[in-house]
Amino acid sequence: MPQHDEFDRIVRLQATLQRQKIDGLLVSQPDNRRYLSGYTAPDHGIQESSGFLLIPAEGRPYLLTDSRFTLQAEAEAFHFKIELYKKGLLKLLEQLASRMGLHTLGFESDYFLHSTFLRLTHMAEKEGLALKPQSGLVEKMRLIKSEKELNLLRKSTRLNEKVFQSVYNTIEPGMTEREIALAIDLTMREMGAEGPSFDTIVAFGTNAARPHAVPTDRELQAGDLVLIDMGLIYQGYCSDMTRTFVAGKPDQTYLDRHRLVRRAQLAAINAIQAGVTGFAVDKAARQVLIDGGYGDYFGHGLGHGVGIAVHEEPRLSPSSRKQLRAGMVVTVEPGIYLPDWGGIRLENMVVVGEEGCETLNHDTTFLDL
Amino acid sequence: MPQHDEFDRIVRLQATLQRQKIDGLLVSQPDNRRYLSGYTAPDHGIQESSGFLLIPAEGRPYLLTDSRFTLQAEAEAFHFKIELYKKGLLKLLEQLASRMGLHTLGFESDYFLHSTFLRLTHMAEKEGLALKPQSGLVEKMRLIKSEKELNLLRKSTRLNEKVFQSVYNTIEPGMTEREIALAIDLTMREMGAEGPSFDTIVAFGTNAARPHAVPTDRELQAGDLVLIDMGLIYQGYCSDMTRTFVAGKPDQTYLDRHRLVRRAQLAAINAIQAGVTGFAVDKAARQVLIDGGYGDYFGHGLGHGVGIAVHEEPRLSPSSRKQLRAGMVVTVEPGIYLPDWGGIRLENMVVVGEEGCETLNHDTTFLDL
Repeated sequence: MPQHDEFDRIVRLQATLQRQKIDGLLVSQPDNRRYLSGYTAPDHGIQESSGFLLIPAEGRPYLLTDSRFTLQAEAEAFHFKIELYKKGLLKLLEQLASRMGLHTLGFESDYFLHSTFLRLTHMAEKEGLALKPQSGLVEKMRLIKSEKELNLLRKSTRLNEKVFQSVYNTIEPGMTEREIALAIDLTMREMGAEGPSFDTIVAFGTNAARPHAVPTDRELQAGDLVLIDMGLIYQGYCSDMTRTFVAGKPDQTYLDRHRLVRRAQLAAINAIQAGVTGFAVDKAARQVLIDGGYGDYFGHGLGHGVGIAVHEEPRLSPSSRKQLRAGMVVTVEPGIYLPDWGGIRLENMVVVGEEGCETLNHDTTFLDL
Repeated sequence: MPQHDEFDRIVRLQATLQRQKIDGLLVSQPDNRRYLSGYTAPDHGIQESSGFLLIPAEGRPYLLTDSRFTLQAEAEAFHFKIELYKKGLLKLLEQLASRMGLHTLGFESDYFLHSTFLRLTHMAEKEGLALKPQSGLVEKMRLIKSEKELNLLRKSTRLNEKVFQSVYNTIEPGMTEREIALAIDLTMREMGAEGPSFDTIVAFGTNAARPHAVPTDRELQAGDLVLIDMGLIYQGYCSDMTRTFVAGKPDQTYLDRHRLVRRAQLAAINAIQAGVTGFAVDKAARQVLIDGGYGDYFGHGLGHGVGIAVHEEPRLSPSSRKQLRAGMVVTVEPGIYLPDWGGIRLENMVVVGEEGCETLNHDTTFLDL
């Protein structure tokens, strides 16, 4: 009964809506939409939505979409009543609000266009409907992963490791960053992923000094440092992993720096468990880098949540004061970046447990040098 | 002097702002941002923007972004003053509005999140700034293409044709829709495109009866009808083309239907010139299909504008009453869709002229059977 997850989520969301006296919630954010309904059609930007959910505080939820998506919606979101908007979303919403007797309507303020809001306001005034902008209602539910979700995240990570290993075996001097990135994207799809979960990063030498490097036509030379940051989407769930290595034999400087970053990563992983703050985990890794003399070369946060979205809550960073809870999934990705030399980042994903955590990555070939 | 386009656009936009008494316009829509500045960094959804433009009614325009994009912004948007937001967009906007002495601020209502609007409203009240939601200001400028833009659209279309031909030569029974779609995406990049301009459609047989089919693992069999709808981005400009053919020898039914769709396409192309409405062009094609007995099997509009975005104004459809103007670029894509048989769609791009139009596609191999 693999689809019961979505049903349970609707029931939990409806309990929240009842508590907050929201008669119906309009869900526009695509990750939230997929999480609640199982409907996988992606948006092409916020201006080309493939549908909206309308979740009443009780009773059967609705999926509002257009005729292009009818078949997919019916097949995937089978708990939902499918309604097609022929004359636009607002017209259909007006009809449904009236039919369902809604007095208050919530909408997702963080993923709702101002121009749509203006039209919604106009309609609401006409219908005597009170609008209640919401923020984070569904995102909060997504923080804690179910056992089914954890299994998909495990599989996504394993597949990501396999793709890495497969492409790694083909890397040789003369290949460009773009060629390797393209091979990774291609291999992901060949091996059964929906696609990459973010723009694949492949950076040689000094290019790796930029945490968000974009692949270039630079050719690999023997002795170059290589940083690869890659992730894929497997049955809706994202993976995210970074490995750094040397094409050929690493020198002592590289080895020292790599081992320092790995020690920082392990320090953080050892610190992770329910009740610890994102700040404390970040600090555990950061302190190792500071003590090693590289504190000034680690300019980003230590990690972020991963699930249906590749970047979601919680954050592990100097400003994240919230406590981790069991069932959260986060990346642990310390790095050091030296503009004239290059960068080393090592990234794993872990599941927060009541005691300790579970590392989703299994291949340690490029971690323990 | 290839970069002068952007400078001219700023000057024209500033004239509009002065007329409309808008002291500054905040540009958030990524295509508009690229059009005005030359800055190519893409957004990863509206929640992960790579920057905003702030165009004052006179004087030098600003590009607001974060430190990840400094180098790219400086290199590409060299007419702009680059400002980094370290404490968020709103804080920086507040400083700039005060420094520049803005009393009214326009923003793009069609690409502006409600939650950001709430924070902007808060800031504006504090600063005594009047907010003026705008719709279509820059989009209207983008309707008419410059000679430089037309050349890029010509090149984009030619490259798209080359990619099609290259992949077509490799198609053989046993290949899946997904494999062909993947080969197209890969070949685009290998041949110098930035990537596909939309999700490539490859559909065999009855799958082609859905206008927005998503590639599946269905294997090609000799005699199958094949519909390919593909487009790429070349130096920022999109192409969009559909071809339908049969793997092997087409039967008489196929030939009759294909020729009917081609006649509908040519009727529309012959009707296109400045002053004609989108409705009239759609009707020219639609009437051919109606007369041929297939009027009920053409369920979508005839075409759409193409430029920096693959779907933009104007539309050619039964509801588009606006007149075409010289320099607009539109697709002409009639189709017929029969659920138990398949679909045929033929799509070219044309430039509207004062008299007649110019077809950007040159390869007619799969058009005139």
